[in-house]
Amino acid sequence: MPRKPRSIDVTQVTEWQDGLVRRTQDYLVAEEPLEIRIGRTPLSVTMRTPGHDLELAAGFLFAEGLIERREQILSLEYGKPNAKTRQASDNVVHVRLKAGLLKSESRRNFFINSSCGICGKASIEAVMARGIRRSNRNFFLDPAVLCTFPDTLKSSQSIFDRTGGLHAAGLFDAQGKLVVLREDVGRHNAVDKVVGWALLSEEIRLPLDRYALMVSGRGGFEIIQKALLAGIPLLASVSAPSSLAVRLAREAGMTLVGFLRGQRFLVYSGEERLQSKNATASEGRTELGAPARPRVQS
Amino acid sequence: MPRKPRSIDVTQVTEWQDGLVRRTQDYLVAEEPLEIRIGRTPLSVTMRTPGHDLELAAGFLFAEGLIERREQILSLEYGKPNAKTRQASDNVVHVRLKAGLLKSESRRNFFINSSCGICGKASIEAVMARGIRRSNRNFFLDPAVLCTFPDTLKSSQSIFDRTGGLHAAGLFDAQGKLVVLREDVGRHNAVDKVVGWALLSEEIRLPLDRYALMVSGRGGFEIIQKALLAGIPLLASVSAPSSLAVRLAREAGMTLVGFLRGQRFLVYSGEERLQSKNATASEGRTELGAPARPRVQS
Repeated sequence: MPRKPRSIDVTQVTEWQDGLVRRTQDYLVAEEPLEIRIGRTPLSVTMRTPGHDLELAAGFLFAEGLIERREQILSLEYGKPNAKTRQASDNVVHVRLKAGLLKSESRRNFFINSSCGICGKASIEAVMARGIRRSNRNFFLDPAVLCTFPDTLKSSQSIFDRTGGLHAAGLFDAQGKLVVLREDVGRHNAVDKVVGWALLSEEIRLPLDRYALMVSGRGGFEIIQKALLAGIPLLASVSAPSSLAVRLAREAGMTLVGFLRGQRFLVYSGEERLQSKNATASEGRTELGAPARPRVQS
Repeated sequence: MPRKPRSIDVTQVTEWQDGLVRRTQDYLVAEEPLEIRIGRTPLSVTMRTPGHDLELAAGFLFAEGLIERREQILSLEYGKPNAKTRQASDNVVHVRLKAGLLKSESRRNFFINSSCGICGKASIEAVMARGIRRSNRNFFLDPAVLCTFPDTLKSSQSIFDRTGGLHAAGLFDAQGKLVVLREDVGRHNAVDKVVGWALLSEEIRLPLDRYALMVSGRGGFEIIQKALLAGIPLLASVSAPSSLAVRLAREAGMTLVGFLRGQRFLVYSGEERLQSKNATASEGRTELGAPARPRVQS
């Protein structure tokens, strides 16, 4: 067994405030490389926050299209200690897959083989071509429940709370219960860890079509893609989505929520899933101007 | 010539606030794939905000260790329109390099060839092995000047101001003048664009050893790495660095500043470069507890 992963480090820092200087201590979120190996072949090296690494590896393989089901993983384990160097091996995950699963159907190859040129449309088609079912039409969420997600997430983020330095992804059910939370220096890794958790879980099975995913930070194309592949019908973020993220969500029938803060959010796609008993519809089209909203760098 | 890149899109959204629903419009930051090709060989596909793509390509090649100087690039241009599809080719950048430059000395290969196992120490050694000079010892910055960086950056961020959805990297001189600013949905891309700008510039030359770099968001390992390779002696961010970022900065003698907000910041490494005429030293070690600081999700 590898040593218990350290997600937090402590360090000496100098604090400067209004011209006053003092020595103090600060918590840092841990970042270490993780190598995923399939058999003897290195597949990828990613910088991540140690912890939940088997889930990260499983989620990454799923997102890359190398596996679809837990049963396709024969074994998944930390690397054995290097005999020569006795180097700790908790930064290597070894995977053995069922035969025939390394056909390299990954997104990157899809792009490279695409004959029509590279563009946002091709990127969306590449995702859709991976057999995404249109998101669950029977999943509904009360906006009042949605508005509880950020506080629930924040109060559960043990590492962020101490370091202020990482991303979170939380899976919620329609009643607003947080099912699983993962934190990482990499936003993508936090989502991979959630999906990998589900993939390896005994209680839950993919697709995650009865759950909503909330992420810290922005909703970019690749985050939407990862959520879609896992069958998640609703994705919410505290910040802005990108143009391509919105196009992909609309194409796939996913509900995409941004700027979820307090009692306010914007819906970019799939608003039919957000059903409130107390909503007052006021169909007022505004002038083409930025809506008033808090601008928080993220 | 490709069409003028669009960095901002407009879309219809539904705004939900305190139970009131209305239709409005929102600006989105554009995200599109960019393929970098060396000769006929695709090197990478990255999601980015269109604009300054040649700089992005040049900065990426530099960060990956494929080039060190502008003169090694024979040509750098957008792809020609596809004859069959007439597909716009502004998502492809073609690069021709001087012969012998594709030895694949990239970081990834370094990791994979590393015999001692993979760990944070190996990651740092991999960066240092690329011949980083210790950061410029003659670069000094007044903390009062440093504290002006965030406002200068924010007031110049034209895309962020309208979309709220992307990252910025700004290069400053020691007098606090913003030399160049680049914005992108990807934090790494924003830094690659700044370094690529310098690489292609006629006015400035690498190494950027008389400049400080300020980035939005966190200071992770790979951001520090990119800044170090460009010779930048001081990196500041509005948020937290990671453990490995701090270790790398200390190893390389780079000044690393985090949580730069208002008249306060933390110095994780290289504080000797921050020389204030008005500082009052109060050497008080605090208990091992998180220093009081604003926690903004980033």
